[in-house]
Amino acid sequence: MERAEIERLLNAYKDGGISIDEAAAELSRLPYEDIGFANVDHHREMRQGFPEVIFAEGKTAAQVTDIMRALLRRSGKSVMASRVSSDKAKRVMAEIGDAVYDEEARILYVRRGEKPVDESRKILVLTAGTSDIPVAAEAALTAEMMGNCVTRLYDVGVAGIHRLFAHEKEITEANVIIVVAGMEGALASVVGGLTARPVIAVPTSVGYGASFHGVSALLAMLNSCSAGVAVMNIDNGFGAGVLAGKINRIK
Amino acid sequence: MERAEIERLLNAYKDGGISIDEAAAELSRLPYEDIGFANVDHHREMRQGFPEVIFAEGKTAAQVTDIMRALLRRSGKSVMASRVSSDKAKRVMAEIGDAVYDEEARILYVRRGEKPVDESRKILVLTAGTSDIPVAAEAALTAEMMGNCVTRLYDVGVAGIHRLFAHEKEITEANVIIVVAGMEGALASVVGGLTARPVIAVPTSVGYGASFHGVSALLAMLNSCSAGVAVMNIDNGFGAGVLAGKINRIK
Amino acid sequence: MERAEIERLLNAYKDGGISIDEAAAELSRLPYEDIGFANVDHHREMRQGFPEVIFAEGKTAAQVTDIMRALLRRSGKSVMASRVSSDKAKRVMAEIGDAVYDEEARILYVRRGEKPVDESRKILVLTAGTSDIPVAAEAALTAEMMGNCVTRLYDVGVAGIHRLFAHEKEITEANVIIVVAGMEGALASVVGGLTARPVIAVPTSVGYGASFHGVSALLAMLNSCSAGVAVMNIDNGFGAGVLAGKINRIK
Amino acid sequence: MERAEIERLLNAYKDGGISIDEAAAELSRLPYEDIGFANVDHHREMRQGFPEVIFAEGKTAAQVTDIMRALLRRSGKSVMASRVSSDKAKRVMAEIGDAVYDEEARILYVRRGEKPVDESRKILVLTAGTSDIPVAAEAALTAEMMGNCVTRLYDVGVAGIHRLFAHEKEITEANVIIVVAGMEGALASVVGGLTARPVIAVPTSVGYGASFHGVSALLAMLNSCSAGVAVMNIDNGFGAGVLAGKINRIK
Amino acid sequence: MERAEIERLLNAYKDGGISIDEAAAELSRLPYEDIGFANVDHHREMRQGFPEVIFAEGKTAAQVTDIMRALLRRSGKSVMASRVSSDKAKRVMAEIGDAVYDEEARILYVRRGEKPVDESRKILVLTAGTSDIPVAAEAALTAEMMGNCVTRLYDVGVAGIHRLFAHEKEITEANVIIVVAGMEGALASVVGGLTARPVIAVPTSVGYGASFHGVSALLAMLNSCSAGVAVMNIDNGFGAGVLAGKINRIK
Amino acid sequence: MERAEIERLLNAYKDGGISIDEAAAELSRLPYEDIGFANVDHHREMRQGFPEVIFAEGKTAAQVTDIMRALLRRSGKSVMASRVSSDKAKRVMAEIGDAVYDEEARILYVRRGEKPVDESRKILVLTAGTSDIPVAAEAALTAEMMGNCVTRLYDVGVAGIHRLFAHEKEITEANVIIVVAGMEGALASVVGGLTARPVIAVPTSVGYGASFHGVSALLAMLNSCSAGVAVMNIDNGFGAGVLAGKINRIK
Amino acid sequence: MERAEIERLLNAYKDGGISIDEAAAELSRLPYEDIGFANVDHHREMRQGFPEVIFAEGKTAAQVTDIMRALLRRSGKSVMASRVSSDKAKRVMAEIGDAVYDEEARILYVRRGEKPVDESRKILVLTAGTSDIPVAAEAALTAEMMGNCVTRLYDVGVAGIHRLFAHEKEITEANVIIVVAGMEGALASVVGGLTARPVIAVPTSVGYGASFHGVSALLAMLNSCSAGVAVMNIDNGFGAGVLAGKINRIK
Amino acid sequence: MERAEIERLLNAYKDGGISIDEAAAELSRLPYEDIGFANVDHHREMRQGFPEVIFAEGKTAAQVTDIMRALLRRSGKSVMASRVSSDKAKRVMAEIGDAVYDEEARILYVRRGEKPVDESRKILVLTAGTSDIPVAAEAALTAEMMGNCVTRLYDVGVAGIHRLFAHEKEITEANVIIVVAGMEGALASVVGGLTARPVIAVPTSVGYGASFHGVSALLAMLNSCSAGVAVMNIDNGFGAGVLAGKINRIK
Repeated sequence: MERAEIERLLNAYKDGGISIDEAAAELSRLPYEDIGFANVDHHREMRQGFPEVIFAEGKTAAQVTDIMRALLRRSGKSVMASRVSSDKAKRVMAEIGDAVYDEEARILYVRRGEKPVDESRKILVLTAGTSDIPVAAEAALTAEMMGNCVTRLYDVGVAGIHRLFAHEKEITEANVIIVVAGMEGALASVVGGLTARPVIAVPTSVGYGASFHGVSALLAMLNSCSAGVAVMNIDNGFGAGVLAGKINRIK
Repeated sequence: MERAEIERLLNAYKDGGISIDEAAAELSRLPYEDIGFANVDHHREMRQGFPEVIFAEGKTAAQVTDIMRALLRRSGKSVMASRVSSDKAKRVMAEIGDAVYDEEARILYVRRGEKPVDESRKILVLTAGTSDIPVAAEAALTAEMMGNCVTRLYDVGVAGIHRLFAHEKEITEANVIIVVAGMEGALASVVGGLTARPVIAVPTSVGYGASFHGVSALLAMLNSCSAGVAVMNIDNGFGAGVLAGKINRIK
Repeated sequence: MERAEIERLLNAYKDGGISIDEAAAELSRLPYEDIGFANVDHHREMRQGFPEVIFAEGKTAAQVTDIMRALLRRSGKSVMASRVSSDKAKRVMAEIGDAVYDEEARILYVRRGEKPVDESRKILVLTAGTSDIPVAAEAALTAEMMGNCVTRLYDVGVAGIHRLFAHEKEITEANVIIVVAGMEGALASVVGGLTARPVIAVPTSVGYGASFHGVSALLAMLNSCSAGVAVMNIDNGFGAGVLAGKINRIK
Repeated sequence: MERAEIERLLNAYKDGGISIDEAAAELSRLPYEDIGFANVDHHREMRQGFPEVIFAEGKTAAQVTDIMRALLRRSGKSVMASRVSSDKAKRVMAEIGDAVYDEEARILYVRRGEKPVDESRKILVLTAGTSDIPVAAEAALTAEMMGNCVTRLYDVGVAGIHRLFAHEKEITEANVIIVVAGMEGALASVVGGLTARPVIAVPTSVGYGASFHGVSALLAMLNSCSAGVAVMNIDNGFGAGVLAGKINRIK
Repeated sequence: MERAEIERLLNAYKDGGISIDEAAAELSRLPYEDIGFANVDHHREMRQGFPEVIFAEGKTAAQVTDIMRALLRRSGKSVMASRVSSDKAKRVMAEIGDAVYDEEARILYVRRGEKPVDESRKILVLTAGTSDIPVAAEAALTAEMMGNCVTRLYDVGVAGIHRLFAHEKEITEANVIIVVAGMEGALASVVGGLTARPVIAVPTSVGYGASFHGVSALLAMLNSCSAGVAVMNIDNGFGAGVLAGKINRIK
Repeated sequence: MERAEIERLLNAYKDGGISIDEAAAELSRLPYEDIGFANVDHHREMRQGFPEVIFAEGKTAAQVTDIMRALLRRSGKSVMASRVSSDKAKRVMAEIGDAVYDEEARILYVRRGEKPVDESRKILVLTAGTSDIPVAAEAALTAEMMGNCVTRLYDVGVAGIHRLFAHEKEITEANVIIVVAGMEGALASVVGGLTARPVIAVPTSVGYGASFHGVSALLAMLNSCSAGVAVMNIDNGFGAGVLAGKINRIK
Repeated sequence: MERAEIERLLNAYKDGGISIDEAAAELSRLPYEDIGFANVDHHREMRQGFPEVIFAEGKTAAQVTDIMRALLRRSGKSVMASRVSSDKAKRVMAEIGDAVYDEEARILYVRRGEKPVDESRKILVLTAGTSDIPVAAEAALTAEMMGNCVTRLYDVGVAGIHRLFAHEKEITEANVIIVVAGMEGALASVVGGLTARPVIAVPTSVGYGASFHGVSALLAMLNSCSAGVAVMNIDNGFGAGVLAGKINRIK
Repeated sequence: MERAEIERLLNAYKDGGISIDEAAAELSRLPYEDIGFANVDHHREMRQGFPEVIFAEGKTAAQVTDIMRALLRRSGKSVMASRVSSDKAKRVMAEIGDAVYDEEARILYVRRGEKPVDESRKILVLTAGTSDIPVAAEAALTAEMMGNCVTRLYDVGVAGIHRLFAHEKEITEANVIIVVAGMEGALASVVGGLTARPVIAVPTSVGYGASFHGVSALLAMLNSCSAGVAVMNIDNGFGAGVLAGKINRIK
């Protein structure tokens, strides 16, 4: 219910145009959609810095172009499309001049009203192997789109654990850590034991046979012996980036 | 490797007691355990306010008593034991005078050096039904043991969604929200859509038949359409409390 | 927001006690809980004839007694508790004089304001075997508590299909049919092929080995080659009774 | 056994053309297929308004054309083919002039003897997201082919629950509601809590990772905390439309 | 429909007691149950030698006693109850004097009208280990109750394959072979490669961990590289005995 | 060990050419392969009428051609290749003149030494739907290649059960019945209840969603309430044909 | 076939007591069981040092006593019974004077002919947590019963990885390493990365919720990113001990 | 920490260039990466003979070429790339002259510093069928690349067990045996019963239907009744080769 409408009702009652019964009835049926929009408004404040997001998988280049244009017109905020193939990205970029494509993260985006980044609050994104990089890149860029400062450390899996320990400094300094791993997903537990910061674990579908497209890593992460590891859906780099961003803005 | 030992080595070399070869060899083999302890020390600072924890399931009352006593002697910190049955708790309390038992949370604890709570940083714990309460209570008390201010709202599941909406204020004001739900676990998604704060979802084994002891709720939460919902293992209230505490201490 | 409150606001504005800004702001924040209750009221009308329900599994006799008493005091409607063991029922009945126990359905109930049953709108409950009867009885009694006329036909599974065909008349005359079956759950498909009425299939956990506690029957029912068979959770007789009642009251 | 045949037998016996032994023997062997056809005849009455249906997946355009033509010749009823790709539809339409293709629902149909629609008995079809639309459209058009009046509301998932509440009126007025959702399928429970009408839940294979091609939504719907939600197979929009139609014709 | 009834109808029509319409109507509604019984009669001939069977699991001693008595009165055939515990058997035997209990097979039976056994048509029952014996004994005794000659060879699993090969003669001479095995169920494939006779494989729930209560053996048997191995449900010795008996009576 | 070799050894010993030690040693090491061949010889007698079989999936046309030629040269028996695509068949037939391709069964074969068929021992192959036909055709042709007389009845699923009952005669007369069904696989149980003959159930991967590529039908068949139904692997028409042939040759 | 028998045959032929046909026939039918025993004899040599083993789960104390006595009489080797409860052990020890019970490993054993241990070939057994100890102890004692020198290191899981690194020396010096871990089983991968020796991973059923009784750890170990980790069944400490012993005796 | 650096520190302290505090601090912070390299060095000795390995699946020919070249430059050891398609291999070989492609094993390799093979320590690789050969060939070539002597025996599955027994000699003489089998994986148990040597079982994804892409064989192998069978991930021939090599180098 827009303010104008409420004012109209209040004045109609004051002026005697409608009875108190009528006014009360109408107000008590205050339609949900307006509450909804109020809700959205209320959220908007909290959502400062969040980009608008398009899940591009299963959408054509034309559809992505149309939605992206509409969002850019409407919101004045940055817009990102996730899971965009290289081909699709090219076709969208031919239409939307200032769109940028990050091939590693498979994200196509337009930046608006860039918020200054607080560099003292770092998010660290780790991967166990090189095949986990696309998911990690999606998480990292998503967090950056939300105004975070992100460090990427790839291929530091537990089979050669010295590679991980070589980065003690980055681990110690991070505010939030995202661990991206497929196969047996052990990296999340090891990192969880090295830091007192929140660890977000993202299982990937990397592996074969009994990895069951990421189920093995997912279960390992859910059962982490390191207390307080948060788990995301398989390959959900975007969600991890969003969660890290939400955590990192708490003050 | 303790500082004393390093100093001894340095001085032995300076004094000519050992050759540079011997000193280098010994130092280059710097044993892991000492790094380990250094690590622990380093962590200890970050872990201020964390209680010592005993997972009591499968341990006898005597074992819990012994471990609890040892921890109290050693660390000077608060100690909590999770998954303690009522009977076991009584037997431990007969031995350890200042132990307190929270039956709802099945946690037995001794508080030490109580840190003042920052009441402006609230953690909200919601449950979908009444059967989810033990898991929620475990999460809530765990977070409180870490010095957090926790609000509990139970039985606000989506089948009667007005019960949830009646608590908009608590949802809006919380820094971190823990959602505990069994069956179809839909509450996590609904709450995730109402807040921009981190939401930690804990599936419970509440339900029967195709709930598969919590798998249904677990999958629902992993697939939440609300971006950035963190998921814990089934019935892992303790882990949710720890994660919420870790998030809430970020400043 | 109760009507009194809305009136107070309207009058305060009319009287100049508050400005239009204040009134609009307060009204635009119309709290959810009141909408919620309005919602409930609105629903209550539709829910005429529905009993109040207690899921008794995991509750003590004392808890069931207390909740049942409270519901009886508050609503003036019939009350039923499902999944009540024989022992628990006895203890509740010692406290609540007019409670009745149906051992087959494991339901304990108090009838109030009995609505006349429309005998021309029959619900038929079929089971494949004798072990499926408790679930079927739960469905049947639940539907009866909602004011429906229910026919029970047990042990008419497909291994001896003539037993089923002997009841063509009951099948033809039913408005809604509930099929309760474990093991391979084939009865749902056969009945679905014999009628144009809605068929509600309830898989049961009857069976062993590869029945996987009802999964076999559940999958069979979900894949029924008879179009338009509705499936419930394993052993969910209560839900089937409710759904049949909801369908049967459409006019 | 057709009536003509029975009369022939009766008269042959009366006329002495066959002995009582012969007549009894022939009648006691009353062949199943005739019972079958009787059955079909009996059903036909109830099935008024049901279209003939072809499951086109895995059939060639030529096969679909042939079957459709045969059905049109034989039954005089409307005919629909489900799961028809755009290409296949074009090739069939080149052969069958009055065939119409609904691309969204992937249904190709020929309407015959259009029955007047009872607009007071509405079926509402909701989807959680835009990717769920093909399944919902299949459900909606199927129900329409059976002579029902259908309202479609797409993309009202629980992550932005105000979008759902904005349609309270449609929800309240519907006779039967079909909820189509993938991922965590929470919409079914929320809608089930808002209405006393039958809710038919259709899980979709929308999602990735731990959605397991619709299993997550399927389990969530089977475990709905809202009593009496009927569940269909994953992506089974057709079945949901049929069930809604069967429910809606009860009078 | 019994012959007497058909004759009554035919004569009533001939005598003018009923019109041709009435006679045709009644005959065209020829009730299924009578067809059913005809069916049963027809089957009875084929089922010569089959005992009546009671699945005793989940039934009380009193229930088993009652059903057994009723079957003995009615059919004049042998009666067997499967899955009878030792205690339950004792209580039934106290009531039914000529009941015999086979503890190994957990079968309680009464033999009637013992058919002479054809010793040239042997059924061989093999087990991989000693823990598989109860299921094998159930299969063997079931087949014997159907008048078959059964040889038992237990504990001839593939880990010590010479134990199996020592019985080449029994394997060669058997008409049908039942292989009962848990764990990895490899025995079925090995035996299937040694004989051209039908092999019936019964997986058992013997094992632990990744045997998943018999799933491992079940899958192994379904995937046997020996062509034409028939598989039964986990622990379904009774079904294997019945199938072997059905195969063995083909002439 | 061929007879000639044994004789040579015996005579060498008798003639003093080798000592008793040497002879005993050589004989006690009687190599397995010879036992193997003896075994095969022994089997050969039983395997009269069995064709040689090639599993063509994953083999090139050239490989199938080579193996088929080798088998034809070596054994003088009929040869069949299963799971042969239409294209592959054409290329093999261009090389092997008397090879015949059955497209429905996807089998390519060469018939040799055709054994007269015993028409009094019929095998009946039923399918629930039309999509199950390829698997059924594979079973039927396999059994025919083994010299059996096979009747095919397709599309007699339980949703229109009169279609099945119209074929009571074929069901009653069959010696062995193969039931091929996907989706919920209910046909196996219904047929199992109509006959006392062995029923071989073949689940197919026909279906979608919760059919899980045949798992639904597989579980249903394993849990059949009709005693003594044999189950094959999903889509294993070949195995069903072999088993039916093995059963049918018992005399 | 024992040597004596072969000699008898050879001589009977040489002496003309039997014809060459008779001798060849008998020899060509060389019974499998004798090959079997020869096999066993052959194996016995290799199996030097292996104890006789009884799987005691599901056996009564009396049965274990009887089998143990028989084995002691027959083989002269050490005998061990695995999975023996404390109560059962007491009852067996009352009968067999020199039996020893290891409560941690749940193994009851009698040592005979103690073979001197080669202390330079160490087997190291690690556990992630304290709850994994029973499985580890079973592995360790089994290997010791085979004459191996075993080091035990418990509770060195990856959540506090410094505890593991403190034991670099034991890891480096071991010939074979057994890693026993439940929950997420990450320890196997970390250890696999620290050594070039064979690593045997034993998942345990330690954990709850999504550990699925050890499935989580099992999958993690099968998907280890460290190449060449061998995996055993869940909780199969015995098998790990046997495998380690087999590896360790290779020279 | 390189020796040079340690020496520099020691000397700086000795020379008074830095205080004991500074030296101790720097040394106590001995960075992990240096330990890591020390670790690697330490391992290098043990890893003599191990080739460098590239997992080529998902990498382009250009990427494989680049990595292979880099490894050849850096390590002076042999290099192998696994899971290389024929096309990709050709493109790499066009760039790297001395690369060799083994099509069966799908491995592309460059041999350097060939170590003399110890022919007395044989590794035997067995397959159940011909479709298992690629996995077996990968295992065999991997072990050969590590300097082992490997015997290959293909297509000796249990359905024709004489084929296996014909190779008793190879089985008896092998130091380590790798068993590669799909479908029901029974070969591992049979071989495990014939030898006292370590058996490494590799399940393959060969099969269809209920083989579930290798799960059936995997479970069978995990549940082997032959004690001490080691199991690898599905299709993990590489891992089996590595493990066999690790076992075979123990002395």
